[in-house]
Amino acid sequence: MNKVEVCFSPSQYNLYKSNFEIAVVIDVLRATSAICAGIENGIERIIPVSTVEQAMEYKNQGYMVAAEREGKVVDGFDFGNSPYSYMNPNLKGKTVVMTTTNGTKAINIAADMHTVVIGSLNNLDALCQWLIDQKKDVMLLGSGWKDKFNLEDTICAGAIADKLIDSQKFKATEDSTIAAKFIARSAAQNIFSFLKASSHRQRLRKLNLNEDVKYCLTPNTVTCIPMLKDDAIQKVAYDYVPETAEI
Amino acid sequence: MNKVEVCFSPSQYNLYKSNFEIAVVIDVLRATSAICAGIENGIERIIPVSTVEQAMEYKNQGYMVAAEREGKVVDGFDFGNSPYSYMNPNLKGKTVVMTTTNGTKAINIAADMHTVVIGSLNNLDALCQWLIDQKKDVMLLGSGWKDKFNLEDTICAGAIADKLIDSQKFKATEDSTIAAKFIARSAAQNIFSFLKASSHRQRLRKLNLNEDVKYCLTPNTVTCIPMLKDDAIQKVAYDYVPETAEI
Repeated sequence: MNKVEVCFSPSQYNLYKSNFEIAVVIDVLRATSAICAGIENGIERIIPVSTVEQAMEYKNQGYMVAAEREGKVVDGFDFGNSPYSYMNPNLKGKTVVMTTTNGTKAINIAADMHTVVIGSLNNLDALCQWLIDQKKDVMLLGSGWKDKFNLEDTICAGAIADKLIDSQKFKATEDSTIAAKFIARSAAQNIFSFLKASSHRQRLRKLNLNEDVKYCLTPNTVTCIPMLKDDAIQKVAYDYVPETAEI
Repeated sequence: MNKVEVCFSPSQYNLYKSNFEIAVVIDVLRATSAICAGIENGIERIIPVSTVEQAMEYKNQGYMVAAEREGKVVDGFDFGNSPYSYMNPNLKGKTVVMTTTNGTKAINIAADMHTVVIGSLNNLDALCQWLIDQKKDVMLLGSGWKDKFNLEDTICAGAIADKLIDSQKFKATEDSTIAAKFIARSAAQNIFSFLKASSHRQRLRKLNLNEDVKYCLTPNTVTCIPMLKDDAIQKVAYDYVPETAEI
């Protein structure tokens, strides 16, 4: 039996990290949803960097660079973390550099784990199937908001934990995992409505990003498993067969 | 309108602490439940210390000293954190020194706040009424388990937040507060059953402490407001009148 546990935010990473082999980094609104959209749509590599300064160095070397802070595209960069920006056909086969308020920071904090993959509601079922196939202990790391707990990452982590435990190949013992599963089940019928009071939804609503939010909260729109390899996020070769697929 | 927010554990205290005037420290299983039991039953002062070494210094000076680690009474001390120990009539009017795995540490971390009071399910309604009367911003600080999130403190914090917000004198914006309220409402009908999978309940079950757990999870058995003053927890003079009291 493998273990799966939820860590609510990067600030708690060191309390939870011992003995896990795989970290799933989750930033539903919007970094990891955007990464899944980009990798699914043919971006070859996404290099996550923590600071705007690092991102600018890449920009000066001629890279396509995405930079977001406080929900907005940082001045002077090509785009931010709207998933729709990452579906641009011009990005196919390209390398994109990315820095965001929370998500890329969480990816880099988890980089000491043996394997780091990218989770979102968008790749939920494919990711869970892949995780079950690996037979390793899994930490689900929410990116949070500036090191604090946030609801949407917890819902996604709870949904993943629930599926892994349902497979009877995983068990959980931490209270954070029990709480995340519980919140995910309660939110499952209508995540968009459940999150209406959440802090980041309100932040994005003010920025007129409702379409982005709807996209990010829709489960199973993609089947890619983006993985960090050699400092860049790339697609894992994996044939996902949905359980309900017609053959 | 005052604000009320939930901080899940001492490790997150610095992320949340700005601008609050009152901290409510919560360690339902069992430190703050025991403190409420002791203060209600006539203990004059409870001195919370963080380490067993500090506790032993007091012991050597002749104080009654309670020390708990990992759910058990530490060898050589008078008692641990079972609430029933604090109801001993021999303790009336006395000073007790106390150190516990999580609760006393959280109290000392919050000691830089203007006002620190002790919360539990046992003093829930009286505490909420007192907090509403103060007209100050309130942080509800869970003691957690070794700096991690735990369910029982979150349920208590969520129940307090819910009552304060219901009074229409308080508002909350953090996702942690929304989640705590939600979990508290879901657990309200049967907290004992809701917590059956929680990590600390399982820890205490192994130690045959079910009676303690039942006591700690019973709302409104006491009406005291224990407050930290001059390094010791003492009773606040406060006449709590239950809303449903017959006059």
